[in-house]
Amino acid sequence: MTAYQQLVAHFATIDKFSHLAAICGWDQAAMMPSGGAQARSEAMAELAVHIHSLSCDPRIGDWLQAAQSQELSTIEQASVREMARSFQQATILPQRLVEAKAIAGAKCEHAWRTQRKNNDWQGFLINFQEVVALSREEAAVRASQGHATAYDAMLDLYEPGVTSQQLDGVFGDVKTWLPDFINTAVERQSKLAVADSHYPTSAQTQLGQALMAQFGFDFARGRLDVSVHPFCGGVSQDTRITTRYREDDFLQAMMGVIHETGHACYEQGLPSALAALPVGKARSMGIHESQSLFYEMQIARDSSFSEVLFAAVKQHLADYLPADFSVTKLQQQIQQVERGFIRVDADEVTYPAHVILRYEIERDLINGAIEAEHLPALWQEKMQSYLGLSTAGNYRDGCMQDIHWTDGSFGYFPSYTLGAMYAAQFRAAMEREFDVSKALQAGDLAPLRNWLDKNVWQQASLLETNELVRVATGEQLNPNYFKQHLAKRYLGQ
Amino acid sequence: MTAYQQLVAHFATIDKFSHLAAICGWDQAAMMPSGGAQARSEAMAELAVHIHSLSCDPRIGDWLQAAQSQELSTIEQASVREMARSFQQATILPQRLVEAKAIAGAKCEHAWRTQRKNNDWQGFLINFQEVVALSREEAAVRASQGHATAYDAMLDLYEPGVTSQQLDGVFGDVKTWLPDFINTAVERQSKLAVADSHYPTSAQTQLGQALMAQFGFDFARGRLDVSVHPFCGGVSQDTRITTRYREDDFLQAMMGVIHETGHACYEQGLPSALAALPVGKARSMGIHESQSLFYEMQIARDSSFSEVLFAAVKQHLADYLPADFSVTKLQQQIQQVERGFIRVDADEVTYPAHVILRYEIERDLINGAIEAEHLPALWQEKMQSYLGLSTAGNYRDGCMQDIHWTDGSFGYFPSYTLGAMYAAQFRAAMEREFDVSKALQAGDLAPLRNWLDKNVWQQASLLETNELVRVATGEQLNPNYFKQHLAKRYLGQ
Repeated sequence: MTAYQQLVAHFATIDKFSHLAAICGWDQAAMMPSGGAQARSEAMAELAVHIHSLSCDPRIGDWLQAAQSQELSTIEQASVREMARSFQQATILPQRLVEAKAIAGAKCEHAWRTQRKNNDWQGFLINFQEVVALSREEAAVRASQGHATAYDAMLDLYEPGVTSQQLDGVFGDVKTWLPDFINTAVERQSKLAVADSHYPTSAQTQLGQALMAQFGFDFARGRLDVSVHPFCGGVSQDTRITTRYREDDFLQAMMGVIHETGHACYEQGLPSALAALPVGKARSMGIHESQSLFYEMQIARDSSFSEVLFAAVKQHLADYLPADFSVTKLQQQIQQVERGFIRVDADEVTYPAHVILRYEIERDLINGAIEAEHLPALWQEKMQSYLGLSTAGNYRDGCMQDIHWTDGSFGYFPSYTLGAMYAAQFRAAMEREFDVSKALQAGDLAPLRNWLDKNVWQQASLLETNELVRVATGEQLNPNYFKQHLAKRYLGQ
Repeated sequence: MTAYQQLVAHFATIDKFSHLAAICGWDQAAMMPSGGAQARSEAMAELAVHIHSLSCDPRIGDWLQAAQSQELSTIEQASVREMARSFQQATILPQRLVEAKAIAGAKCEHAWRTQRKNNDWQGFLINFQEVVALSREEAAVRASQGHATAYDAMLDLYEPGVTSQQLDGVFGDVKTWLPDFINTAVERQSKLAVADSHYPTSAQTQLGQALMAQFGFDFARGRLDVSVHPFCGGVSQDTRITTRYREDDFLQAMMGVIHETGHACYEQGLPSALAALPVGKARSMGIHESQSLFYEMQIARDSSFSEVLFAAVKQHLADYLPADFSVTKLQQQIQQVERGFIRVDADEVTYPAHVILRYEIERDLINGAIEAEHLPALWQEKMQSYLGLSTAGNYRDGCMQDIHWTDGSFGYFPSYTLGAMYAAQFRAAMEREFDVSKALQAGDLAPLRNWLDKNVWQQASLLETNELVRVATGEQLNPNYFKQHLAKRYLGQ
């Protein structure tokens, strides 16, 4: 076997164990009874250790070295690049640091679940300072591989190739117009009045499954189930999404299902020939989010699609809808803009404000420009400036609201807004090829799916993120498409 | 760490991977969409290789040796004995033979799925002869560890300590009275007339869950789902049973659920302190079947329990039951005796005939007294003699009906009837301690569960099978209890 073939065989083995971890992880969230939790988490931890040990196998380094002198195809070269990325990420941190961060992160996250309820910032801060210290140490080690700043090294974990210089430019632009935009959009919209109603879970499930089918989800290779926190899990051959149901509001589950279906169609659309290799996986968190947000924001909440969505809702929920329910009411509800404290409840207009705020804080925190104890004041100041809301003394709905930082996942937040921007840029590129609104009006998603399949899904990790966007749309990330999208939908421009 | 502690740590690691294998195996049968099959079976195969490699770790041999000179408690001694059994079973066969048998077994089983439908004995025979040859080779290697015959070594895999000499005695006795018994029981019963009806799956599921709760299933540590072939899977901390539903007959699913609940309560009742060790696992196939058959035959089909069962059925299926449905009708249906070709459809009276026939054939086949090509003639002769049925030319419903032999699982069949006999003997032992019928009439299963918990579940694999039965009931396996049980129920004696 050549060195490259050795690498392929080894990464295929890792992939098989990752497959089992994905299924057992899904089971843990969607199926497992509470009494199974302890034994399961121990078994999953053992499997994680095994996968980590396979990922750090020193032979990978030798094979990578030897593969340099092989004649490789373009795909194989990309494959080696992604294997090297995986190997480097798995091995660069000293074991001591990996373990210390895992322990500190688990401790901080566990305590946070109670501390957040109790609005206990001082209690949280003690654990959190330890997480920050270890994350800075991690960032410094990773940054030694040629990143411009410590924070850039963390960003690279979630969005390979994207830099804080690039984000400063993109988010800096958004900051110049977003607060005014939000004001205008909020003033412009008519008052929302939703009549009480009751939507049985079984009917909502049927609606969700019908929409999944319409959006191209392959039920021979996936499932829809229920979990407390909706997610897309499983493997590309067997992709499993979850949702949660509120019987007084069908929109939450319906939009959640469509969002997760976007993630799932990306997974199901990845090239099967490369499925076991790092190069065959989804490109990044931001590109993944671009697919879920494309489905949710560019298709499902688009005015051109309202009649189609309305028909699906009527077909499955006719017996439960308020008498005055109409396509206009539906559209008004799914395009509502509202300032709020909580990121996960935000609409697409206010969402970037939540992300930019977090980006600026975590960037400065990891780079050592600010300290953990400065967070509440900075949060308060930025919320006031971007959204006009005060979080003074309200840590629970302020800087303690998210799980990400509790275990040191710094660098993750930008992906959400990058995803929204990529999605808008993909839509604009599509528009140059065919009439997207007309396809949406007809409920014909095939041309949109074909475009995504060719330009995103089949690309897997063959290109770096910025290159993928450039090849797909003719230019690098350009936030103007996102701005234009919002202006068209919310300001009627 | 002492050698024994090393062993405990190593077997705990194996157990964690086995946990994941069990959950993914359950998922494969109960949840997985068809498109996930290929990737899953590859992932499961990789995991099996890993578990096998851990189970064969040569350090186990060293630790076992060193543990001989340690001061060990009685439980620890039993624990070492079961670890040694596991190590010996994992390592005794040459790798070449393990692989050859796996390949031949998979090939034979796969082809059998079509060949059985086509009644293609000649086609099946070609693959099957290879499986027999390799199974004989396996039996010869295993028998070298002190078993009386080659077949005894295979039997020991499923029923540790039970010998073919013992079975010849027990089954030989049954053969003297069973054919006449069946004749009498069939003549004695009144004609069964069941009105057509329709029982929605959702109502049957609720009935099943209610009965599971009544029979002591802990839903905080388990689930009920659907699969093509009902089974009890998962792990002792999270035990998962499945059933299948026919909407024209609720009894099949109901009795299936109660049967699997017996398996599940055994798993859930195993001592949690020993859960990760071989000594903490269920004792044997026969003891496992004794628990499912105790629940099904000694409780659910018992006349003393009929009113309780009838009440549960009425509570959940009242809207769907035929007008003439009564406790007498229910009892008549669940105590029906009928001669048939198919083992899995057999009632408790005819079932032993199916097992004894298979036992005699597989014993002689593995010991080399007969050859694979003799199977149809022997089957035909024994079916005629034990059940008065002819299978001439009907291989599909004759010697090709079961999956067990296709992959070389010789030695498994006796467990079914041993289970029925153990269950009857346990019942008789209980009767000496309290009035079982009275408890059943009251629907109070606590004293029965307490007896099983103390004498079977908490015993796990601390004792060898024969010793477990002796300690629990005061004597070794005695088929008279089974005969008396059948005579009381079916001949009114």
